[in-house]
Amino acid sequence: MKLKDEEKHERLITAAITILAQNGLAGFSTTKVAKLAGIPQSNVYIYFANKQGLLAAVYQTTVHRQSAAVAAALVDTAPLTTQLTASVTALYAFARDFPETVAAIQVLLDDPELKHQLQLKRDDVANQRIQALIETGVARGILRPTDLNFLRYFLARPVFHYAAGVRAHLYSESPAALADLTAMIMGAVLRPEVYQDWLLTQKG
Amino acid sequence: MKLKDEEKHERLITAAITILAQNGLAGFSTTKVAKLAGIPQSNVYIYFANKQGLLAAVYQTTVHRQSAAVAAALVDTAPLTTQLTASVTALYAFARDFPETVAAIQVLLDDPELKHQLQLKRDDVANQRIQALIETGVARGILRPTDLNFLRYFLARPVFHYAAGVRAHLYSESPAALADLTAMIMGAVLRPEVYQDWLLTQKG
Repeated sequence: MKLKDEEKHERLITAAITILAQNGLAGFSTTKVAKLAGIPQSNVYIYFANKQGLLAAVYQTTVHRQSAAVAAALVDTAPLTTQLTASVTALYAFARDFPETVAAIQVLLDDPELKHQLQLKRDDVANQRIQALIETGVARGILRPTDLNFLRYFLARPVFHYAAGVRAHLYSESPAALADLTAMIMGAVLRPEVYQDWLLTQKG
Repeated sequence: MKLKDEEKHERLITAAITILAQNGLAGFSTTKVAKLAGIPQSNVYIYFANKQGLLAAVYQTTVHRQSAAVAAALVDTAPLTTQLTASVTALYAFARDFPETVAAIQVLLDDPELKHQLQLKRDDVANQRIQALIETGVARGILRPTDLNFLRYFLARPVFHYAAGVRAHLYSESPAALADLTAMIMGAVLRPEVYQDWLLTQKG
């Protein structure tokens, strides 16, 4: 893509994220996206085959941004439980700073039909690193031997809930609240024995 | 209300749940509700002061139905951890059988402005019983001493996620999967020492 085209492509993605976050999937249309981006609707189809193609691009972009923010907080040489708690902290900062991006991700994931069609970018190294962390955790007996989607759910959704709750003044933003939430998530995802050991490191 | 009026009131609530579940809050209007219910839009205002009043009634009705389904599964004399796991099982059955009701509850709770305005029915005994269960759990050192909204979140949302995932064929519906999910929820909400004791009762 030419530089000018890339800028328009980016502007359409940004507008699509806002429309998804504000209106949900039922209120999403290329008409609204084009209008918000200030680009003629017919031009949208230069960049995306159709609405579905635009949604797929939004999914890949938003998941990649989230993954990059989380992956940046991971230290490969640190214990896996340390990396998991670091991922919760980093994900919270991301959800706090980019509420529309996180809202758009949830709208897309919560639609059963879309969920099957959406694919991650093949070259999303950051996301691959996070997926490898979870798979390694299960293989090493650190995370529970359960459906990986359960583990992904508990590692992300409560964090999104807390960030949204802080914005809505339902929760206060405090290290103590985030520590509580982190402990609850660890209790959910870690194997019970590993969770006990992790608790001891927290008290020390 | 007269019998005939009650039937129309009920029909409007049912239609509102469907519209909320399918279109979200951004796509919700009394026009759509009236059309789906087959009732002239002007008549909606005989039953509800305005859109806000209709949403408040939907909130009270849906939360009451969910609470009644969960409360029916609780045995007062059973240990509190047994009541908590029974609530997860009952909530799953409810979410599986009434997906639109559960979707509507989530749409309403996820809106930050609404969340502050919505109030539960004063005489919702079933919900009061569940709230008392959670408060007693904290007071007795069974549930974590954290924000009650964190506890409510972990006790309900993962269950809704699993039920929606089963419908979308993301998860299989199996006792093993529900047991995994229940153990993850217990790991999140129970105090660590109580969680260890609970695990022992599961293995026996």
